Amino acid sequence: MRIAQYFPILDWGRTYDRAALSNDLIAAVIVTIMLIPQSLAYALLAGLPPEVGIYASIAPIILYAIFGTSRALAVGPVAVVSLLTASAIGQVAEQGTAGYAVAALTLAFLSGGILVLLGVLRLGFLANFLSHPVISGFITASGILIATSQLKHVLGIDAHGHTLPEMIVSVVGHLGQVNPITVAIGVSATAILFWVRLGLKPFLRKLGASPKLADVATKAGPVAAVVATTLAVWLFSLDSAGVRTVGEVPQSLPPLTMPGLSPELVQALFVPAILISVIGFVESVSVAQTLAAKKRQRIDPDQELIGLGAANIGAAFTGGYPVTGGFARSVVNFDAGAETPAAGAYTALGLAIAAVALTPLVYYLPNATLAATIIVAVLSLVDFKILKKIWGYSKSDFTAVTATILLTLGLGVEVGVASGVVISVLLHLFKTSRPHVAEVGLVSGSQHFRNIHRHKVETSSQVLTLRVDESLYFINARFLEDMVQARVAEGGSIKHVILMFSAVNEVDFSALESLEAINEHLKDMNVGLHLSEVKGPVMDRLKQSHLLEHLNGDVFLSQFDAWQALAGRALVEPAAQ
Amino acid sequence: MRIAQYFPILDWGRTYDRAALSNDLIAAVIVTIMLIPQSLAYALLAGLPPEVGIYASIAPIILYAIFGTSRALAVGPVAVVSLLTASAIGQVAEQGTAGYAVAALTLAFLSGGILVLLGVLRLGFLANFLSHPVISGFITASGILIATSQLKHVLGIDAHGHTLPEMIVSVVGHLGQVNPITVAIGVSATAILFWVRLGLKPFLRKLGASPKLADVATKAGPVAAVVATTLAVWLFSLDSAGVRTVGEVPQSLPPLTMPGLSPELVQALFVPAILISVIGFVESVSVAQTLAAKKRQRIDPDQELIGLGAANIGAAFTGGYPVTGGFARSVVNFDAGAETPAAGAYTALGLAIAAVALTPLVYYLPNATLAATIIVAVLSLVDFKILKKIWGYSKSDFTAVTATILLTLGLGVEVGVASGVVISVLLHLFKTSRPHVAEVGLVSGSQHFRNIHRHKVETSSQVLTLRVDESLYFINARFLEDMVQARVAEGGSIKHVILMFSAVNEVDFSALESLEAINEHLKDMNVGLHLSEVKGPVMDRLKQSHLLEHLNGDVFLSQFDAWQALAGRALVEPAAQ
Repeated sequence: MRIAQYFPILDWGRTYDRAALSNDLIAAVIVTIMLIPQSLAYALLAGLPPEVGIYASIAPIILYAIFGTSRALAVGPVAVVSLLTASAIGQVAEQGTAGYAVAALTLAFLSGGILVLLGVLRLGFLANFLSHPVISGFITASGILIATSQLKHVLGIDAHGHTLPEMIVSVVGHLGQVNPITVAIGVSATAILFWVRLGLKPFLRKLGASPKLADVATKAGPVAAVVATTLAVWLFSLDSAGVRTVGEVPQSLPPLTMPGLSPELVQALFVPAILISVIGFVESVSVAQTLAAKKRQRIDPDQELIGLGAANIGAAFTGGYPVTGGFARSVVNFDAGAETPAAGAYTALGLAIAAVALTPLVYYLPNATLAATIIVAVLSLVDFKILKKIWGYSKSDFTAVTATILLTLGLGVEVGVASGVVISVLLHLFKTSRPHVAEVGLVSGSQHFRNIHRHKVETSSQVLTLRVDESLYFINARFLEDMVQARVAEGGSIKHVILMFSAVNEVDFSALESLEAINEHLKDMNVGLHLSEVKGPVMDRLKQSHLLEHLNGDVFLSQFDAWQALAGRALVEPAAQ
Repeated sequence: MRIAQYFPILDWGRTYDRAALSNDLIAAVIVTIMLIPQSLAYALLAGLPPEVGIYASIAPIILYAIFGTSRALAVGPVAVVSLLTASAIGQVAEQGTAGYAVAALTLAFLSGGILVLLGVLRLGFLANFLSHPVISGFITASGILIATSQLKHVLGIDAHGHTLPEMIVSVVGHLGQVNPITVAIGVSATAILFWVRLGLKPFLRKLGASPKLADVATKAGPVAAVVATTLAVWLFSLDSAGVRTVGEVPQSLPPLTMPGLSPELVQALFVPAILISVIGFVESVSVAQTLAAKKRQRIDPDQELIGLGAANIGAAFTGGYPVTGGFARSVVNFDAGAETPAAGAYTALGLAIAAVALTPLVYYLPNATLAATIIVAVLSLVDFKILKKIWGYSKSDFTAVTATILLTLGLGVEVGVASGVVISVLLHLFKTSRPHVAEVGLVSGSQHFRNIHRHKVETSSQVLTLRVDESLYFINARFLEDMVQARVAEGGSIKHVILMFSAVNEVDFSALESLEAINEHLKDMNVGLHLSEVKGPVMDRLKQSHLLEHLNGDVFLSQFDAWQALAGRALVEPAAQ
């Protein structure tokens, strides 16, 4: 373990040259422009003052550049983590209070600490407990929740709630407050942004624009909407007509802050912090891995934990809130040609300049426009097509994804994702609890054995061969016991049972005891028990036990050997048995 | 589904004859004599009046005879379930109150209902969540807890507690109360019973007694101890010297009782009832299966659930408490020659007569004697040798058994067994999270492929073959993704990757997406991805997905075909790749 392994910057930094510098600078300019409205919007989603979104994009980016392994990942506030943040700290503090902002810092600090710890202990694989169906169900449900949570800004009303029913009831209850001008701004911004996302590119291409230009125009859409609606509010003084705007934003670099670490606060936020860490990590690693593969690069998931952890700890001390690697911004960064994490550092510089110089410009920016950018961004996360795909592939995975969606919408993000994990694990255990066991026979003229119900094969009434298509462990150990006993009790003339272990990758202690019990039961019935095609690691372990010495039969290297020895013997001396 | 399947009595009842009747009657007499002191003792352990132990042995036995499938199982109070009962109802009512007895009825009713429900839904396999290491750890720890809990009766003091530290502290704190005569009775009864259990049989055999006689004498030991100490108390009026005795026991048949079903009580006892059901079921099925195999009979685990459920519901309405099939009494029943469940019904009759006629005789029976019979019985459950056996076989199973023992002793039976289940599941998932993946090559002159690190095999620098020794599912899907990417990134000249699927029994949706990601990554690197030896059920499912049509390579029936096609092609046209 070299110290340098924790500083990937030492790796790419050594070869950093002028070409990389210029590519990184161009990417940084593009990402900075895109990040300004996005950062404000996500802070709004998390229930925090807008500048917090900018702050959360500065120190974390620099820290990730030092510790992270992905060349193109852009770290900062993202939609799902912002929603989780709002849900978690909404339980311990009132939105708008100082306690709320401090709780956000604490949450960032805790999840940073958890991520670093997992990274140092190399426990990144724990994130695998989130199966793909659970992740996609969770992302889809979160997209719906986030879009719904932004309705209040589009309508200009007060509403609240952390589950879909709560939000809908609250919005409906406050419909009387609707501000028509806000609705006009919000709805038109949403409509235009949707069109920009879906229709602008083909439209420009039809007009003869280059693909590059069409692409840039599409990405500049949110910036244009921000500029246009801000100007409209300023020119027509719509803020005095009840349109809520971002308002005063302090002109300053990120402040030095301290997360609150009182035992009650830490206890209340610990479980949400675990959830945010794991979900943020999974989102980030998926993006990083996809982008790395395109350049035949590699990311190290355990070092990624440390990079993201450092970014979150940085956010906690610089007035931010939990961050992770975002999908949209990372793809933009990659497409814009970023070559190294230095591009991220330049983006941080650009945002620092914006924090000091440009914040007065967002005074008249309507919250409705920010809400519109969020709605358009997150609805692209909602993916019901995956349901059909999963249904066609596996009913069990479909159950997991559907349960995750419904529980997330109905009971909130935390319960939803936790239940999804538990349901996936239980479904997996259930599937392996009744393994596929095929009764096999010899394919005539070959040494192959196949399922007697699918192929025409040679069998013997005295020799029963069962191929077990699953590792044997406590959940299915008794199943095998029952099955062998039932099969032998029904076929009265059976003299030998062969268990073919070609697909058995493990035999745990419970399964060993079941095999011993099967051996005893068969011995009581005067039937032999034999094993064939036992894998090396399984055999090594069985040799540690007493099964083999008490086995009322033999272990054969190949099933064909077993068949020749036993079926042959059975034919030659049936009376002696 | 015939109705008759739920009434196994219709099966054996049709062929019941005089020979079976006489065998069953003899067995019933022996079991009845053994059950009287045992039933009183276990009621004491559960904190209930002594007659409850007798009542719990009457209706349940008859109901099991009607619904159960084992010919030899003897149902009634058992040590572990009595301990669980004491622990569960101790949390909702004070021992000795009417509420305590009602809670015991409710617990029996709930666990009966749960068992019947599981049986009707055919969910008996859920009991498999208790792995053998967890069960043996739990039984050992319970034995220690039970023996310790009886110390207070042997010493004649008041003490309490549900964990080992609590009990020890409480016993030490009450040492001032010790009653010397009680200690004399308790210690000598314990010593004599231990000697009867371990030394009497060889001693009698040495004196020339027949094995049969030695056996009967050994089993009559507890009855003799009961008679002797009862006589001593009566003759010398030791009860007035502070020796606590069973005292007044109502002379009556089991009363008709109603379990309490208030929502608070049901809610408080529901989780303990699940635990008691599952543990009782596992204990009972293990015994029943062992005994059935000896006579080449079969039990049906799902029908067993119904049989045990009926027995518990019967206990709830006849003044009993939770029951299950006991190990000791079932073995005695079997050895005494019981042929059908009718033997159980005759035992019930014997106990009913005892309840009406013999209860005055136990007035002077000292609690210390009953405690001694319990201590001697349960210490035979304590088995530390299994720890060594498990350590030698599997470190992971050893972790599970050790954790279960320590948590059961330190935090009580309920936390202990629940943690054991969770730990086993997590350890299993952990083991499968980093599957064994072997890089394989061709054994020269054969069609076999073996691990390149264990055997001398042919390999190609352009073709990488990985044999995956585990089913692929969400927990290990990303591991494979990382591994393939790492392996290809390091070996620069690789043109083809073959995944050999001979031991892959399942590919869930997460793993499918990982395979798709691997395919995309490799495509980006201009490397082909191929599959070989895919099992029928896995192939059927993959055909439902889009993986195969987008696969940047082929699916080969055998690994040898794949090798010939790809290694051959690589050798012939390396420049074209």
